[in-house]
Amino acid sequence: MEVPTIDDIRAAAKRIAPYAHRTPVLTSATLDRMTGAHLYFKCESFQRVGAFKFRGAANAVFSLSDGEAKNGVATHSSGNHAQALSLAAWMRGVPAYVVMPSNSPEVKQAAVREYGGKIVHCKPTLKDREETLQRVVAETGAHFVHAYDDQRVIAGQGTVALELLDERPDLDVIIVSVGGGGLISGTSLVARAHSPLLRVIGAEPEGADDAFRSLRDNVLYGAKDHKSIADGLLTALSERTFSIIRQGVQKIVLVDESLIVYALRTMFTRMKLVVEPSGAVPLAAMLSGKLTELGGRKVGLIISGGNIDPRTLAQLIES
Amino acid sequence: MEVPTIDDIRAAAKRIAPYAHRTPVLTSATLDRMTGAHLYFKCESFQRVGAFKFRGAANAVFSLSDGEAKNGVATHSSGNHAQALSLAAWMRGVPAYVVMPSNSPEVKQAAVREYGGKIVHCKPTLKDREETLQRVVAETGAHFVHAYDDQRVIAGQGTVALELLDERPDLDVIIVSVGGGGLISGTSLVARAHSPLLRVIGAEPEGADDAFRSLRDNVLYGAKDHKSIADGLLTALSERTFSIIRQGVQKIVLVDESLIVYALRTMFTRMKLVVEPSGAVPLAAMLSGKLTELGGRKVGLIISGGNIDPRTLAQLIES
Repeated sequence: MEVPTIDDIRAAAKRIAPYAHRTPVLTSATLDRMTGAHLYFKCESFQRVGAFKFRGAANAVFSLSDGEAKNGVATHSSGNHAQALSLAAWMRGVPAYVVMPSNSPEVKQAAVREYGGKIVHCKPTLKDREETLQRVVAETGAHFVHAYDDQRVIAGQGTVALELLDERPDLDVIIVSVGGGGLISGTSLVARAHSPLLRVIGAEPEGADDAFRSLRDNVLYGAKDHKSIADGLLTALSERTFSIIRQGVQKIVLVDESLIVYALRTMFTRMKLVVEPSGAVPLAAMLSGKLTELGGRKVGLIISGGNIDPRTLAQLIES
Repeated sequence: MEVPTIDDIRAAAKRIAPYAHRTPVLTSATLDRMTGAHLYFKCESFQRVGAFKFRGAANAVFSLSDGEAKNGVATHSSGNHAQALSLAAWMRGVPAYVVMPSNSPEVKQAAVREYGGKIVHCKPTLKDREETLQRVVAETGAHFVHAYDDQRVIAGQGTVALELLDERPDLDVIIVSVGGGGLISGTSLVARAHSPLLRVIGAEPEGADDAFRSLRDNVLYGAKDHKSIADGLLTALSERTFSIIRQGVQKIVLVDESLIVYALRTMFTRMKLVVEPSGAVPLAAMLSGKLTELGGRKVGLIISGGNIDPRTLAQLIES
């Protein structure tokens, strides 16, 4: 089980620089007042395909040799990783095969096609999804790129924190949402190399609390019955991401659904940011009253993405 | 009639630096493809109070001597300038008096109060507004700061272009919306000092086309019967802004309402930006088919602000 080093992450930053955006770090006097801390929002909502996932996907695709890359890449995902891998493959000039349940929302399928991905339908079961992926890989020779259980992907996601710390080397803590754990793993590896004083705190919806429980009980739990508006965070950790998190993450804070919506709405009205529910989870943690020890501290928050359909956003904001 | 020099604008940048945000410049591969140009969006939606207006207001307020400032500042405005002046005055520790018609939307009055401004109601006529302002100034000794017909305000608005060109010195053109002309005046003064090759193009709603007609006919027209969803652009030029525009603005492009909505929606869905209708007008100009000469060029677009209420935004996006 390979884990990236800080050098791998620095190499990833160089590798993806021609393709990925360097995203801005924004601040808000209003939110500083509301939380009593100094907040620095690293806005991956402005990343290509609207989410940090492009970094990991691009690092994986451009890490391949020409021989490995020529038959393309494949994944199973119906979220941001599918779009990210499709765009990265298109940039490299190779195909991307995306296995998706045939009942996936049309808007998600359209997004993958728009970035040049080829959709392969499967039945909406875990078993058929994995069998379909294996078949695609066998038939096409495509290279499988997992959404987070992949050291190249984790290294790519780590470049978010590299950029944030390059701009704000004096942060006391970085708060990151936890889904499969790719982003927080990369963040934690960068933080440990940056300073022994820099802490990493995870933020997770109550309805998808596998990482919280896994860290508490030192047992890797699955994603059974996960349910949250933060649909990017419904996946569970892998052995790899769990092992990294155990070493580098000090704490995971749970937030309830109403707090996620409140955070999303606040970022919209006060910061003019369009964020998806998952992207609002770190701010929800700051607003939860569970992090009062951060009063007066410099806190980085990674805003993971901005892919939310306008109708849903409108409903959440008016709710 | 005083007009700021480039040195005044550089001094403004230094003066407001402790108070104003340096806003990010964003790019979008999708919008580059759609327009055939290289677009650089200077996002003043992320400025304090959500609009570039804070720059001019802050420069005016912090230009005052202690003696001039001590009785506060006053203005008549129901838009972003009122909020901007209120916040700048609060930062300086002096009162801001804002004359607004008593029938102004409650949300706009609340925004002014939130930034510490004191609202003085007037009747909804131009005459009563000006008389009320004069009375407030006479009674309080406050210093009047006009929303755009003021050289300190124009110098402050010029700092947007200073920052944009600092980051992107190789721009071929900057597109700016035109209301009262403060922003485009500041931009044009900076552009002329930057390079004789750099052009400034104005963008104006068809329903508020006074600047277009003024430039065409070399006559200063008023704001009679202006009507547009871009409510920040309903005002007319002043002698001062007209004289600056005549010297430094090559062209003004008119855009219709549906194009403004389309541009706003596109920035929302593709760039994850919350912009007010006025802020979408420069992109609408790029999408109008009237600027085909900019194919392949490097084009800066100033996104003037992001103050739109969520319900209106939701309606526009779904329309």
